[in-house]
Amino acid sequence: MIVQLKLNTSEEKVQELIKRIKDKGLDTTYVVGDNHSILGVLGDTSRINIDELEAQEYVEKVIRIQEPYKKANRAFHPEDTIIDVNGIKIGGGNIVVMAGPCSVESREQIISVAKDVKKAGAQILRGGAYKPRTSPYAFQGLELEGLELLKEARKETGMPIVTEIMSSDLVDRFVEDVDIIQVGARNMQNFDLLKKLGKIDKPILLKRGMSATIEELLMSAEYIMAGGNHKVILCERGIRTFETYTRNTLDISAIPVLKKLTHLPIIVDPSHATGKYWLVDPLSKASLAAGADGLIIEVHNDPACALCDGPQSLKPKKFDKLMDELRILSKALNVRL
Amino acid sequence: MIVQLKLNTSEEKVQELIKRIKDKGLDTTYVVGDNHSILGVLGDTSRINIDELEAQEYVEKVIRIQEPYKKANRAFHPEDTIIDVNGIKIGGGNIVVMAGPCSVESREQIISVAKDVKKAGAQILRGGAYKPRTSPYAFQGLELEGLELLKEARKETGMPIVTEIMSSDLVDRFVEDVDIIQVGARNMQNFDLLKKLGKIDKPILLKRGMSATIEELLMSAEYIMAGGNHKVILCERGIRTFETYTRNTLDISAIPVLKKLTHLPIIVDPSHATGKYWLVDPLSKASLAAGADGLIIEVHNDPACALCDGPQSLKPKKFDKLMDELRILSKALNVRL
Amino acid sequence: MIVQLKLNTSEEKVQELIKRIKDKGLDTTYVVGDNHSILGVLGDTSRINIDELEAQEYVEKVIRIQEPYKKANRAFHPEDTIIDVNGIKIGGGNIVVMAGPCSVESREQIISVAKDVKKAGAQILRGGAYKPRTSPYAFQGLELEGLELLKEARKETGMPIVTEIMSSDLVDRFVEDVDIIQVGARNMQNFDLLKKLGKIDKPILLKRGMSATIEELLMSAEYIMAGGNHKVILCERGIRTFETYTRNTLDISAIPVLKKLTHLPIIVDPSHATGKYWLVDPLSKASLAAGADGLIIEVHNDPACALCDGPQSLKPKKFDKLMDELRILSKALNVRL
Amino acid sequence: MIVQLKLNTSEEKVQELIKRIKDKGLDTTYVVGDNHSILGVLGDTSRINIDELEAQEYVEKVIRIQEPYKKANRAFHPEDTIIDVNGIKIGGGNIVVMAGPCSVESREQIISVAKDVKKAGAQILRGGAYKPRTSPYAFQGLELEGLELLKEARKETGMPIVTEIMSSDLVDRFVEDVDIIQVGARNMQNFDLLKKLGKIDKPILLKRGMSATIEELLMSAEYIMAGGNHKVILCERGIRTFETYTRNTLDISAIPVLKKLTHLPIIVDPSHATGKYWLVDPLSKASLAAGADGLIIEVHNDPACALCDGPQSLKPKKFDKLMDELRILSKALNVRL
Repeated sequence: MIVQLKLNTSEEKVQELIKRIKDKGLDTTYVVGDNHSILGVLGDTSRINIDELEAQEYVEKVIRIQEPYKKANRAFHPEDTIIDVNGIKIGGGNIVVMAGPCSVESREQIISVAKDVKKAGAQILRGGAYKPRTSPYAFQGLELEGLELLKEARKETGMPIVTEIMSSDLVDRFVEDVDIIQVGARNMQNFDLLKKLGKIDKPILLKRGMSATIEELLMSAEYIMAGGNHKVILCERGIRTFETYTRNTLDISAIPVLKKLTHLPIIVDPSHATGKYWLVDPLSKASLAAGADGLIIEVHNDPACALCDGPQSLKPKKFDKLMDELRILSKALNVRL
Repeated sequence: MIVQLKLNTSEEKVQELIKRIKDKGLDTTYVVGDNHSILGVLGDTSRINIDELEAQEYVEKVIRIQEPYKKANRAFHPEDTIIDVNGIKIGGGNIVVMAGPCSVESREQIISVAKDVKKAGAQILRGGAYKPRTSPYAFQGLELEGLELLKEARKETGMPIVTEIMSSDLVDRFVEDVDIIQVGARNMQNFDLLKKLGKIDKPILLKRGMSATIEELLMSAEYIMAGGNHKVILCERGIRTFETYTRNTLDISAIPVLKKLTHLPIIVDPSHATGKYWLVDPLSKASLAAGADGLIIEVHNDPACALCDGPQSLKPKKFDKLMDELRILSKALNVRL
Repeated sequence: MIVQLKLNTSEEKVQELIKRIKDKGLDTTYVVGDNHSILGVLGDTSRINIDELEAQEYVEKVIRIQEPYKKANRAFHPEDTIIDVNGIKIGGGNIVVMAGPCSVESREQIISVAKDVKKAGAQILRGGAYKPRTSPYAFQGLELEGLELLKEARKETGMPIVTEIMSSDLVDRFVEDVDIIQVGARNMQNFDLLKKLGKIDKPILLKRGMSATIEELLMSAEYIMAGGNHKVILCERGIRTFETYTRNTLDISAIPVLKKLTHLPIIVDPSHATGKYWLVDPLSKASLAAGADGLIIEVHNDPACALCDGPQSLKPKKFDKLMDELRILSKALNVRL
Repeated sequence: MIVQLKLNTSEEKVQELIKRIKDKGLDTTYVVGDNHSILGVLGDTSRINIDELEAQEYVEKVIRIQEPYKKANRAFHPEDTIIDVNGIKIGGGNIVVMAGPCSVESREQIISVAKDVKKAGAQILRGGAYKPRTSPYAFQGLELEGLELLKEARKETGMPIVTEIMSSDLVDRFVEDVDIIQVGARNMQNFDLLKKLGKIDKPILLKRGMSATIEELLMSAEYIMAGGNHKVILCERGIRTFETYTRNTLDISAIPVLKKLTHLPIIVDPSHATGKYWLVDPLSKASLAAGADGLIIEVHNDPACALCDGPQSLKPKKFDKLMDELRILSKALNVRL
């Protein structure tokens, strides 16, 4: 950590600050330049409150050098984390595809789509029971009934299920019912929920918030991991930018960047990233080419009648064709799909 | 609502779509052009699922014309909403100032700051008991103890208190203990929480999410209002942009825009908008000049020792001077402070 | 085009507006709803000045439906444009790789890099003679001397050259000296320059501005094409977002979106998009997987001594390895590299 | 400047780097920590090429501490720059208002508007002769004829004129004809133009680019000043964000931030910042309250017939009323209008 001091800071103030830092068990080094002086802080700087330093009148700026996340940090855990979901391995060069409808709408719908995506090669079934909708007047999901239908689809096909949690009241129920608990983009910094998910033993699919930096995503993963639950799967799903043609802008660079910074698996959601079904194909391919560990894709047997997000859903036939092409691509990329 | 159809859509498809819309009790008008044809939909289009329309293969684009919020919409409620908090009026040309420390740290601290800001002219005391922190390792607030200290400060000074809720488990407790419940930027789309706050009778201070559009902020207000709680105060606190000199970019235009679109009061948080105490003064003035109904400002008796957000806190003396200047400004602007 | 009128607009005003529009040879259709009325405008609406309509007091909003670009629009030119540069075909399923140093620094450097990238399989040599630098105190390029060195490298290797123009005074010189003239991101809306480039017969590589929408990029292409020069190659090079880990955010979705909207070739610059050499490999692959027609990559024989953009330059050996992998990938993607 | 070195960098490499830096006349200090080591660089670091440092394999990151602009830096020139335009003072607590139509359309129009805005209290006449339009098919301005009409309006009213330059070919002509030369947002990084403007002796109104950081704006000012022309007036005109209700987002914080960082005057363009005439009033007031040195406002005698930007133009009557209110506000703010 580098503390830049204002010009003409008195020697007394400097010594006071050095003492304060040393009292926390850290070491310092002090350098005086022409236009400013600098205090280097060495040791485990996560013990230091940056706000406190910056609030000192004689401090110009504080520059952190160490990453603020530890458990999620590849520097301290060089090996890829591989998460096992009922025998399916996520991470470490294994490509996983999660597919299914945006929302569970009926028994027939979810079982039919589940069978279709399984046949096409998807390993995990996705489907929303609780839906985060911008409008209170929009369809909010079948809720508990949706959860039951997902379980039926799992029984019928053997596929593990992933679905979104929206209320921390339901953590116990989700632990019992689902195989991967999804935290949506809007709840990425719902710290109350993250803390509760840190206490359980169940894989969490953590979506990046719409305007979250890569570091903030990792800090949210750290919240879960700090509680003891290390099974976190990160999900890039597009960020908000000035471009309005696509609903969000898929941050494809986040994939290799996350691969460098963390040992956690990274999957991509090309459906929500763009909001348009015809972009799912090129972005799925691009995601694998950039090094993603998997994809989560919306598939609906009748997008034109879907209760939500129809425009971004693939029909089973198109999904089937995409999976064929992804298998060819995976071979060229030397990964296992 | 305008539905743009693809070239060469068959007459049959068009008639099918028209029937579908008419079945929902809406009227349509169909216009054929050279390069595209258009279907105008008239009536209460909030009954229509845009996703469903856009998912039709022959639909190019759907353009909504009506605003999707109703209870928050000034078109349907032209008069300013005025919210009464223990006799203090918020909205309708009354300027309210909420002030206090970022987080409650001790009995002495909160009571001392409360007295200072009251003397300077603030009407409402702010202070965090539960703190949303990016890092799980940072100070998370005194929690329930903080709530108790806020109540003591209220008793001592007579000022109503506003503080942030982070868990929907605590709604009952907050209803009993505080005067205004704050929903932080990170929870603006925590729909589970919003729904619970819609069921109670207590003013809600709803902060705009970091990357929320003005319309999304209004939709979140609508979630609360749809549940029956109409006492919503909106808060602009800066949005996330590419500029990194300030922590966020205060969207000053949002103030007059919200004034036009909604009847709800709008207050501004210049402290979080920028993260720098020396910007609080000019931005507070700019906010009033742009038509804000009030301000929420961080004041700390010892910013250099604050457990969080010290760099953006004013000392009581500076706050006092700011209040004096805001009173002069209010006169020139013809509003009541 | 849809013109939404304010409530209670007088019949007289409406008739006046309809007349005004019909006088320009366009047709209208008028629909009255409960809360607003709408005027549909049919025909070639590019003849209409939207600003003029929106400035009418009784107009609420104007919504354009037709794309404002014509010559660049795939709707009117369904076939891919293929641009021939000394026998190298760009567009139409042919993958082209342009490579070379950020800036030309010396005879030895440019010829050595040119030979290396040619051997690795690049078809076109890139290299900056004029460099757009944020700081007036930074190295600004070898200028005319750099241009001469590029010509020597072309002579030596037979590779066509692409280099950036920064001044419209130099158009004639560039027409004579280079094979593709590059317009940098900062000059994407330098309309004076675009108009001059529209008058010549030479391929233009037009880079997307840092905060330009896809539509604005196409409008800038339209400026060049409107002047008569149809040889425009579009280049996605990252946009500016709130994420600061990478210098820019590569908008990978822009590739398939542009493929849909326009017939012009699209190439990607993964070096400038991220500013980090280790991201060039995954992003190059992702770009091809998403459907790009080519890449423009920085290669330097000694990045550690490069006068600019060293951190994003590949060494020839790494570039060689990348080209091998891209060839394997191209086969899987069924394109020609 | 802080150079963070990778773990396990050999002592040899470190010494080599230190030598390299010392050879440029700078001093260094080397600090070894547990997880990383740091090299502090002291002295005039503008002589160092950051790219070169970052391209060294053993360098993790380079953090600049000194601002890269000098002539524009308040640290080196604490006094406000005051620019005199025919006796009108800009900067240093003098509020200047520039007003006029977006584009010059006819003799009658420009003279009528000039008289109106003068009467209302504007000191400088604005009006576009050359217009930067997104579409090549839109009205591009009256060009040289427009310039002549502006001169007539100046003769008629005695007001100095400010107008935008779009081509570096016209610098000589502008020097002769106009009183302040405006550089538009799209040309903020047209370095060729900036360099030419650095060679002349005429005030430059430099608009912030749509996605330019505050530092980049200052670097562009530095380009002009480095050439010898110190008469630069900065203009905040809104930045591009995800919010689409307003055309741009006025970055009101940029005003006090620029006041701190530079001695140059800062004026605000509320018309282009939002694109809506009814937002000009609140944003003009907010700008003065935040410390701006002036405003540039679009006024048109018949916005409904304006050839461009009608929706954001005020009618003379509204402008007159705004000026009255700004005078009252200025008194409360203790500045001279």
